[in-house]
Amino acid sequence: MIAEKMKDFVNNNSAIRAMFEEGKKLASIYGRENVFDFSLGNPNVAAPIKVNEAIKEILDEEDSVFVHGYMSNSGYEDVRAAIAKSLNKRFDTYFSENNIIMTVGAAGGLNVILKTLLNPGDEVAVFAPYFLEYRAYISNYDGVIVEVAPDTETFMPNLADFETKITSKTKAVIINNPNNPTGVVYKEDTIKEIAAIMEKKQQEFGTEIYLVSDEPYRELAYDGVEVPYLTKYYKNTIVGYSYSKSLSLPGERIGYIVVPSEMTDYENVFSAAAIANRILGFVNAPSLMQRAVAKVLDEKTDVNYYDRNRTTLYENLKKFGFECIKPEGAFYLFMKTPMEDEKEFCEMAKKYNILVVPGSSFACRGYVRIAYCVSYETILNSLSAFEKLSAECFKA
Amino acid sequence: MIAEKMKDFVNNNSAIRAMFEEGKKLASIYGRENVFDFSLGNPNVAAPIKVNEAIKEILDEEDSVFVHGYMSNSGYEDVRAAIAKSLNKRFDTYFSENNIIMTVGAAGGLNVILKTLLNPGDEVAVFAPYFLEYRAYISNYDGVIVEVAPDTETFMPNLADFETKITSKTKAVIINNPNNPTGVVYKEDTIKEIAAIMEKKQQEFGTEIYLVSDEPYRELAYDGVEVPYLTKYYKNTIVGYSYSKSLSLPGERIGYIVVPSEMTDYENVFSAAAIANRILGFVNAPSLMQRAVAKVLDEKTDVNYYDRNRTTLYENLKKFGFECIKPEGAFYLFMKTPMEDEKEFCEMAKKYNILVVPGSSFACRGYVRIAYCVSYETILNSLSAFEKLSAECFKA
Repeated sequence: MIAEKMKDFVNNNSAIRAMFEEGKKLASIYGRENVFDFSLGNPNVAAPIKVNEAIKEILDEEDSVFVHGYMSNSGYEDVRAAIAKSLNKRFDTYFSENNIIMTVGAAGGLNVILKTLLNPGDEVAVFAPYFLEYRAYISNYDGVIVEVAPDTETFMPNLADFETKITSKTKAVIINNPNNPTGVVYKEDTIKEIAAIMEKKQQEFGTEIYLVSDEPYRELAYDGVEVPYLTKYYKNTIVGYSYSKSLSLPGERIGYIVVPSEMTDYENVFSAAAIANRILGFVNAPSLMQRAVAKVLDEKTDVNYYDRNRTTLYENLKKFGFECIKPEGAFYLFMKTPMEDEKEFCEMAKKYNILVVPGSSFACRGYVRIAYCVSYETILNSLSAFEKLSAECFKA
Repeated sequence: MIAEKMKDFVNNNSAIRAMFEEGKKLASIYGRENVFDFSLGNPNVAAPIKVNEAIKEILDEEDSVFVHGYMSNSGYEDVRAAIAKSLNKRFDTYFSENNIIMTVGAAGGLNVILKTLLNPGDEVAVFAPYFLEYRAYISNYDGVIVEVAPDTETFMPNLADFETKITSKTKAVIINNPNNPTGVVYKEDTIKEIAAIMEKKQQEFGTEIYLVSDEPYRELAYDGVEVPYLTKYYKNTIVGYSYSKSLSLPGERIGYIVVPSEMTDYENVFSAAAIANRILGFVNAPSLMQRAVAKVLDEKTDVNYYDRNRTTLYENLKKFGFECIKPEGAFYLFMKTPMEDEKEFCEMAKKYNILVVPGSSFACRGYVRIAYCVSYETILNSLSAFEKLSAECFKA
């Protein structure tokens, strides 16, 4: 009796989430320390101590009715102003509270953006491999997802294919930088090329094409690489941000979107997004957590922690004969599987209690995603399992 | 450039929310104590002290990665089990964690339910007057809202009209008990009659018709009236609950839905609802707040506080010559306006710094909703303003 649209989802539940449940099951059988669960982007690094301190301070010092109460659907004004100021300082932008809407994480923010923009049949371009939930989010508003083919040499955007995929029906392009699942970071040159193509296509078709920048991994970049701030390169940009990874608060569902004043139809887009936040049932981002993040805007997660995992895992996988691009951001490693059918590889890995997500879950077969946001101990303990897995693979 | 569906919303933003913004503006001009803002259901009673204590305890005693991390999309198992147990104790039901999905408030829960059930064109019956957001929620999934005409004598469900409005396309019926905006409570007899009509129609059409019970006001009932627990009367019932009003946590966005095992297609409905929670962008209900409510399940808001407001306001409005049903639940009073056009009345009330919401915002013209979840002082101070308003109305 469920909706037709939901039937496929039920029959074919998110492989990532299914694996999360499987990881819990295996851990209960073999013990958590003997299961190498690289399936979910659930940070193993605790939130900075100041986050919990900020929450307690707010509870002690601010009025409870205010802290737990309704505010404007777009969020507390002072919180939005503080975030705008922090962005301006970091990225040399000119935002105010009138450019920020607090959201239920980046997933909530993306849904708000797509609800705001999409008419049925509108096309949304995404670069494969991509976070497969985009497919569901776009489908929620009867949009049509258009996949740009991957460049499996570099996993940088395939710009030649991108250009052919933009049509008069393209309403939005989603960029995820640093990237899930590949861990690559698109540099300024790439961003400029994407912006140039989009400008050209806007003129060619006489349309507005919005660039949606999904940035939950913004703060996770290694080796000093810069992650460009997209509103500076293309004026029809909307940014979706989350504190899930940057402050290790994925369960709290707190993030924001940025709607720059210079975008076409800014006032309607901003108003519609605030209303979408309400009518989709979010109403507003969780209130206490809004106030908490505003107090710790200068806090950062321990990037060195992830960096050590990244380096150790990458170097050992290479040593064991696996092929992958060295990630520069996020906490994912996208590894080529020795056999063509990556699902076969995933099954084989499970025998060694290694859980990884098949590339088909990101529209890119022949690869697996390894989420290395686990404890360093898990990384170290997993190495002999990966070595055995490699032996079995390459023997075959 | 925004979506067609959003244009009407932007042009015709929620009257309730618009008034919330107006209330803030008036307060900044005249001072908060001189503005009688009865527009929004934002509790003025602070959350029970134990809520903040529970939050601090969790932060001190539980692992931060666990408290702020992802869990199953349906919520922490122990939280769901605790809620099921509490419901069973109170209502003599037989729920387990497999019947509970934690949601981003009741608004999030309703969206999850409608996403789970509705195909485009499916009809959803609602009893006028009703919370106008239902219209948006149903439209989100391309459902068709079907209004049951109000019984303005009693504001109990108009069952004769209800029976004619159920068709072969009816997929769901939404009940809001205690009721927003009227404050009435549907008693057991009424619920039995509604259930009987729905059973009959299910048989007649060979369909399943789901009863969606929207219950954010469950704990707010006065004079000892009982609010029936609907799963006991009709097996295809889904309950949506929120702690917004019962624990004064509206900004925190925390609630749950109940999907009883005995419902038709239970397993698919439960799975689809957990997935809908994820793909709509909620992902999961805010984690810390999930754990907090589970620790204070026996806490209650101060019903006597609202009761005093209710009695004082009701008695004085009657004394001033206004007409309304004495509310038995929630914190709303639905008052007949002396003139037919209730928007004219709202404008007139604004001259006395009284903000109330027109009945047309609830599909019931000729009435206004007065949200008395304000401070008792505001009630007392507003009385002379209401008296002057009455004098102007009845003179005219």
